[in-house]
Amino acid sequence: MTAQSSSKLHKATAFAPASAANVAIGFDILGFSVDVLGDKCTVTRTDKPGVTISGSSGVVKDIPRDPEKNTAGRALLAMQESIKPGFGFDAFIEKGIPLGSGLGGSAASAVAAVVAANALLDKPLTKLELLKFAMQGEAVSSGSLHVDNISPSLFGGLVLTVGIDNPRVKQIPVPNGIRAILVHPHLFLSTKAARGILKPDVKMSDFIWQTANLGGFISGCYTNDLDMIRASFEDVVIEKQRSQLIPGFDAVRAAAMANGALGCTISGAGPTMFAWSLDADAVKVRDAMVAAFQAAGKETDDWIVAISSTGACLVPG
Amino acid sequence: MTAQSSSKLHKATAFAPASAANVAIGFDILGFSVDVLGDKCTVTRTDKPGVTISGSSGVVKDIPRDPEKNTAGRALLAMQESIKPGFGFDAFIEKGIPLGSGLGGSAASAVAAVVAANALLDKPLTKLELLKFAMQGEAVSSGSLHVDNISPSLFGGLVLTVGIDNPRVKQIPVPNGIRAILVHPHLFLSTKAARGILKPDVKMSDFIWQTANLGGFISGCYTNDLDMIRASFEDVVIEKQRSQLIPGFDAVRAAAMANGALGCTISGAGPTMFAWSLDADAVKVRDAMVAAFQAAGKETDDWIVAISSTGACLVPG
Repeated sequence: MTAQSSSKLHKATAFAPASAANVAIGFDILGFSVDVLGDKCTVTRTDKPGVTISGSSGVVKDIPRDPEKNTAGRALLAMQESIKPGFGFDAFIEKGIPLGSGLGGSAASAVAAVVAANALLDKPLTKLELLKFAMQGEAVSSGSLHVDNISPSLFGGLVLTVGIDNPRVKQIPVPNGIRAILVHPHLFLSTKAARGILKPDVKMSDFIWQTANLGGFISGCYTNDLDMIRASFEDVVIEKQRSQLIPGFDAVRAAAMANGALGCTISGAGPTMFAWSLDADAVKVRDAMVAAFQAAGKETDDWIVAISSTGACLVPG
Repeated sequence: MTAQSSSKLHKATAFAPASAANVAIGFDILGFSVDVLGDKCTVTRTDKPGVTISGSSGVVKDIPRDPEKNTAGRALLAMQESIKPGFGFDAFIEKGIPLGSGLGGSAASAVAAVVAANALLDKPLTKLELLKFAMQGEAVSSGSLHVDNISPSLFGGLVLTVGIDNPRVKQIPVPNGIRAILVHPHLFLSTKAARGILKPDVKMSDFIWQTANLGGFISGCYTNDLDMIRASFEDVVIEKQRSQLIPGFDAVRAAAMANGALGCTISGAGPTMFAWSLDADAVKVRDAMVAAFQAAGKETDDWIVAISSTGACLVPG
């Protein structure tokens, strides 16, 4: 028995955090990780190449057992097809992220699966290589290739992804003292449906406005310029189309802004909404958002988090 | 005579650099200054409030003498209307930037005018205040309020402007060793006409692609990431519509890229094209671009510049 073979793992478990995609001004390209909740995946080496899903637990029931229809399964299949490790993967998924919440649950399952499987390989891949496999998995659930949840779940923090075929990832610094307040109303929204309502075109004036805001937001993050972040934290393209799907949206956003939020918008495809604020304002922003959802007849869960994370990682099984 | 009144200037001259707007991925919001050429304006205090244009010299003939129709004059009128200094401005304009070249000539005249006039005020204004007056001037020539030439000419360097009514300006660092190569084919293009051909909408997929590139470009600048700058230095929205107005566009761009350019696109509304490259590649990029324009039957002027500038400033009259 060689030293190498003795170190081979038979089984590994990874945690991948939830994430808030779009971040108002970065539709399909920007997201941040939310590491107080996430999915776990335990991948076990099997003799026969291929992928099986042995089961699941947690907050989501009835996860598809067909790996082609399962986000973790499809990501693992993409990995198998590409690197042909000479053995198979069995996955057991532990869902911590509610389905249809806008918190990147399908991305997290795909990311946890590839990070766990990576630990079983003789030659582990880089995170950028894993990103492509996880993208394939997420496409099963969202209906299209996109990375704005995958990248932050995998890398951690506020993450910009440029390109799909040859993605490049940039972790953007978030000024110290900023907190994200996430409020999840109890309501299911399908990502596919939330994409389906979007108009196929963007008005030129909205395009210019949104790009200015994106530029301002990113510049503000790199330079600790809270005034610039606040001034540019506004989605003029997507939010007005999707907000109709969220009961109480206008009141929740107004409540957050009136209580000192730097910005407040939809997390991914929704219905979760999030705000950014300074630490000192986070509790009152959260309370105001929760109260506004309650006034609209919606019970909620909420979280206040710092946007700092190492992204997906191996954990004890 | 008080100390204050004795320091009052009767006349001041300011230089405002040329600029390249849009920078591929920042249509109407981004531009960089080009300080090897520019316009000068000498403003003289007159007894009667109001604005006169006493004359002009330089590369542009037949500048309108009616201040309402002159970019410098309109900017000075906006300043008069706002601050009511109790005296008037006469302007003499020295044009160093060719008309209809895509190098921000109308912006530079407006900027030079307000910077010179500012030196005559008892209480000089900030550059951000001057920006609003210069914008009014530029609108005379371009037909709309925009700031992507005004801001770099006034502040210097690579400049992002967020907002029109309450503009915020961000000077974005450009990695050391980068040079801008500008090649101006002898051909007049009207900014109004070049805006007129643009479609009123942007396809959602192009919108996403362009925002990814903008985010990548700005992130790349803040982090000295030349690979990211190169990967994201591509306009998928405006360039394909306007490039038809520039003879040889495809060949010039291809020549620049084949010789090591990080990116190559239209300067503002054109017809000037510019590339960015490392210092070591700048001469061969320039030579290749010039040769491609010549093959298309166009004579050219060209400049190689570092993107560093203090922006508009007072100079000896």
